[in-house]
Amino acid sequence: MRTAFTELVGVEHPLAGFNRTPAVVVEVSRAGGLGVLGATMYTPEELDAQLTWIEEQLGGRPYGVDLLVPARTTQRDVGELVADLRRQIPEGHRRFVEGLLAKYSIPPVSEDDALDRLGRIDASLETNMDAAVVSELLDVTFSHRIALVANALGTPPAAMLERAKAQGVPIAALVGKREHAEKQLAAGVDLIVAQGTEAGGHTGNVATMVLTPEVVEIAGDVPVLAAGGIASGPQLAAALALGAAGGWAGSVWLSSHEDAASRVIKEKLLAASSSDTIVSPTRTGKSARQLRSAWLDEWQAEGAPSPLPMPLQSMLVREAWERIDVTAEKGSEPARELESFFVGQVVGSFRELRPTAEIVRDIVEGCEARLREIGRLVEPVRS
Amino acid sequence: MRTAFTELVGVEHPLAGFNRTPAVVVEVSRAGGLGVLGATMYTPEELDAQLTWIEEQLGGRPYGVDLLVPARTTQRDVGELVADLRRQIPEGHRRFVEGLLAKYSIPPVSEDDALDRLGRIDASLETNMDAAVVSELLDVTFSHRIALVANALGTPPAAMLERAKAQGVPIAALVGKREHAEKQLAAGVDLIVAQGTEAGGHTGNVATMVLTPEVVEIAGDVPVLAAGGIASGPQLAAALALGAAGGWAGSVWLSSHEDAASRVIKEKLLAASSSDTIVSPTRTGKSARQLRSAWLDEWQAEGAPSPLPMPLQSMLVREAWERIDVTAEKGSEPARELESFFVGQVVGSFRELRPTAEIVRDIVEGCEARLREIGRLVEPVRS
Repeated sequence: MRTAFTELVGVEHPLAGFNRTPAVVVEVSRAGGLGVLGATMYTPEELDAQLTWIEEQLGGRPYGVDLLVPARTTQRDVGELVADLRRQIPEGHRRFVEGLLAKYSIPPVSEDDALDRLGRIDASLETNMDAAVVSELLDVTFSHRIALVANALGTPPAAMLERAKAQGVPIAALVGKREHAEKQLAAGVDLIVAQGTEAGGHTGNVATMVLTPEVVEIAGDVPVLAAGGIASGPQLAAALALGAAGGWAGSVWLSSHEDAASRVIKEKLLAASSSDTIVSPTRTGKSARQLRSAWLDEWQAEGAPSPLPMPLQSMLVREAWERIDVTAEKGSEPARELESFFVGQVVGSFRELRPTAEIVRDIVEGCEARLREIGRLVEPVRS
Repeated sequence: MRTAFTELVGVEHPLAGFNRTPAVVVEVSRAGGLGVLGATMYTPEELDAQLTWIEEQLGGRPYGVDLLVPARTTQRDVGELVADLRRQIPEGHRRFVEGLLAKYSIPPVSEDDALDRLGRIDASLETNMDAAVVSELLDVTFSHRIALVANALGTPPAAMLERAKAQGVPIAALVGKREHAEKQLAAGVDLIVAQGTEAGGHTGNVATMVLTPEVVEIAGDVPVLAAGGIASGPQLAAALALGAAGGWAGSVWLSSHEDAASRVIKEKLLAASSSDTIVSPTRTGKSARQLRSAWLDEWQAEGAPSPLPMPLQSMLVREAWERIDVTAEKGSEPARELESFFVGQVVGSFRELRPTAEIVRDIVEGCEARLREIGRLVEPVRS
């Protein structure tokens, strides 16, 4: 299937696979899609090492990188900035989180148990406010042979856009509203990812079925990928029917062997139905779709504080989540009740863990089969 | 386009058009779709007159009826029942609604201004609890040549199902969750309408992109229509790609000349974007998607009461809405601010009022064109 997207980034199938686990990125690209590394938790040195590893595996096949670069950075000392931010977290919020952890018997984490980088999904938001860090992340990113660069949050900063243009790397932006797409197109992005409300993680209110055609309508020659609700062949076929040049799948890789999510998280995802997600700002300070769990119930209970804005909320809850994740893995039932992860409504379709390559193949072959099937509705009858 | 749906009801195009205005129903059916009358506000005599009129226009072409039959009815005197229900409405709620009307200078309605039946969209919920009324409504419905009968709310009662089976009339059910589809299939319905969260009116949380394939998966030979987000050719093509046997469109007819909505409502709908709807129980007591307006803001303000359950909430606000509608039509700006209507996220695609027949033609031709286009992605290249 050749589309404006496959032409733009040089892949075989109109499918981008977004994930934070380098092994998933490699497998998506090897299978003919475009693996895109969600690189929101790396220092410049770590990012360099991961991209180097990915390229060693791929031997020239295209892949992409999704960075977390805030629209505004600061020249201030980042240590001072973080200390300042910490002081803005109200004492009542700290007490609420400590009380919640005590209620569910979640102990502190020892040095030995500390999660590696992949566990710290949003660890770098504050440090990424440091202009010097952002500059290094961009240096590292553009020193690699990337086929696409995206910014996970908002309009890419001018420095990122200029750098991408200068090096001929297509730059993508995620949008949840037609108005946001207008801004991104005006800024000059090369690819729009229209993300419907059914998507996991930070998401808007408009469904993929409605958002995709309205973004396609204004995008002109700029290709659009549909995101949110893309986890199977029929759903990729629907994305193409809506006028997209392909699909951007995120959640489905959580059902892969290669994804780094813990055993407990994967078990909860396999058991969930499509009605078991909820949109809540309690993890990052911005509305994000995630698996419904006792954590979310506690924040909705009478007397719970209102979540703080980004980045204060993630600073408030990050250590709590490290403790929950570690304790749940050790077999604690209360920790398991709290456990959650960012995931879209497609979670209801997860039946078993599978190799990433098999997921890609199923989506692509299922899409091709469905396109042939519905194509026959309008073909002249052949006897 | 022949699908299991077109075969089931005997229409040319895989498109059902749901509307409360008989003229829209006629035009959808004349154009080759299946017009379905939303008949939730009629007495048995009125329903008989409307169905007779529709059949006179259609000269044998198929059409359908969507009734509002509660799962439980009562043998009690309906006057007593309604009086009982009225007593359950708290005084504080009455005062809130009166205060809201006073704040926006909405006067009482005189006899001359009273809306006709079409304005009273949910007028019959209480009277439909009367077993005798329901029995008469079913008698009237099944005395006509209907090609489909649906129940607007929940599982069709046994009497309705048996009647439909006995007369060979296909019976449809609307569902917003996979679990509800399981129940309806077990009850023996002939068609499932899987309604995504982007739909107008009473709606669930799961998006069409996710809900449709999961309902199709369990439906076996029972055809599924996708509802929610269906207002254009690409969206109908996407419904077919998802495995549906067609689309069930509701909101799009609000942009037709024939729809009975007032001028003010239509103007507000034409001006709205896809982000301008909200899901709220403030009109009927059940979550329903509608145009965001000052009415909804007032119910979300500090100190506003919690909406009552169905049918108390609609009994509480029905007269208020009649006053708002009448006053808005007379040119009052504050009434216009309050004005709203049930509509899905496709409202953002409304550009102008058009004849219903033209809307049907655009959807069908646009769908066929898109199916040909994406079919070429998998056809062998012909040179």
